[in-house]
Amino acid sequence: MTHTLSALVKNRPRVLARVAGLFARRDFNIESLAVSTTQDPTMSRMTIAVDASDTPLEQVRKQLEKLHDVVEVIDHTNDAIVERELCMMKIEVEPSQRTEVSTLADIFRGDIIDIGNGTLIVQCIGDSEKINAFIENFASYGIVELVRTGKVVLARGVQRT
Amino acid sequence: MTHTLSALVKNRPRVLARVAGLFARRDFNIESLAVSTTQDPTMSRMTIAVDASDTPLEQVRKQLEKLHDVVEVIDHTNDAIVERELCMMKIEVEPSQRTEVSTLADIFRGDIIDIGNGTLIVQCIGDSEKINAFIENFASYGIVELVRTGKVVLARGVQRT
Repeated sequence: MTHTLSALVKNRPRVLARVAGLFARRDFNIESLAVSTTQDPTMSRMTIAVDASDTPLEQVRKQLEKLHDVVEVIDHTNDAIVERELCMMKIEVEPSQRTEVSTLADIFRGDIIDIGNGTLIVQCIGDSEKINAFIENFASYGIVELVRTGKVVLARGVQRT
Repeated sequence: MTHTLSALVKNRPRVLARVAGLFARRDFNIESLAVSTTQDPTMSRMTIAVDASDTPLEQVRKQLEKLHDVVEVIDHTNDAIVERELCMMKIEVEPSQRTEVSTLADIFRGDIIDIGNGTLIVQCIGDSEKINAFIENFASYGIVELVRTGKVVLARGVQRT
């Protein structure tokens, strides 16, 4: 089962190494990780998707919160959240196929953001399930390269997370 | 100066800890990091934005490539790339302000993706400069919470990266 943790940390060198080290010692594979600054440039937010059973993950969450420069760690697994990630994909497309690719991108509310010699870059945002479907549908064109950000989440409504 | 590195790594526990450890030993602060799987589920791509001068970073790039389970590391700093990140922001908005917020979101080609009791969640995608402007423009409403994925990049055109 995939759990999504959101960690508020100080924006300093070594914090990421401490957090990654804690997961590595438990042999948990991090499925995706997104780290960037917040509205306060001294603070960063890490969104960590990890495949783990419930009990050890709660232990890991508590241990994470005890790490130096880690302020707060929330397990969003059972919360009402909005979840999004961004995917960009460079695919092999002949000029004659551009119209059908454009139509397919529209279905996913995606965009064509670059045209090369025999290639296109398409982007899409959505939850992980939508991104997986987006990739599956374009795979037949031949994927030259693909990058996804990993998911980020916010709790819905007025709840402060 | 911010450099953007793209690392293709095996999707295994401990890889992230090794990579983060290498940056920590150099005392480089990672500005943003996005890690997720690629079209091949056994491989992940890490996009690392790091503030560093040129010379040590090239050393770090080479050292990264020598790490176990790291396949390839490209410094995209001087390449023609498309760069995107995703930002979600929960802001304090009274019902009477929703129209002006919706207009502001349209200007950034953003979307309102959740409405709560006195709050809205808006999302936007773009390069880091656009996301910074998006945040600045909404800050006056009062930011309850903000998360951004960190940038991901793809080389333009036919170039294989």
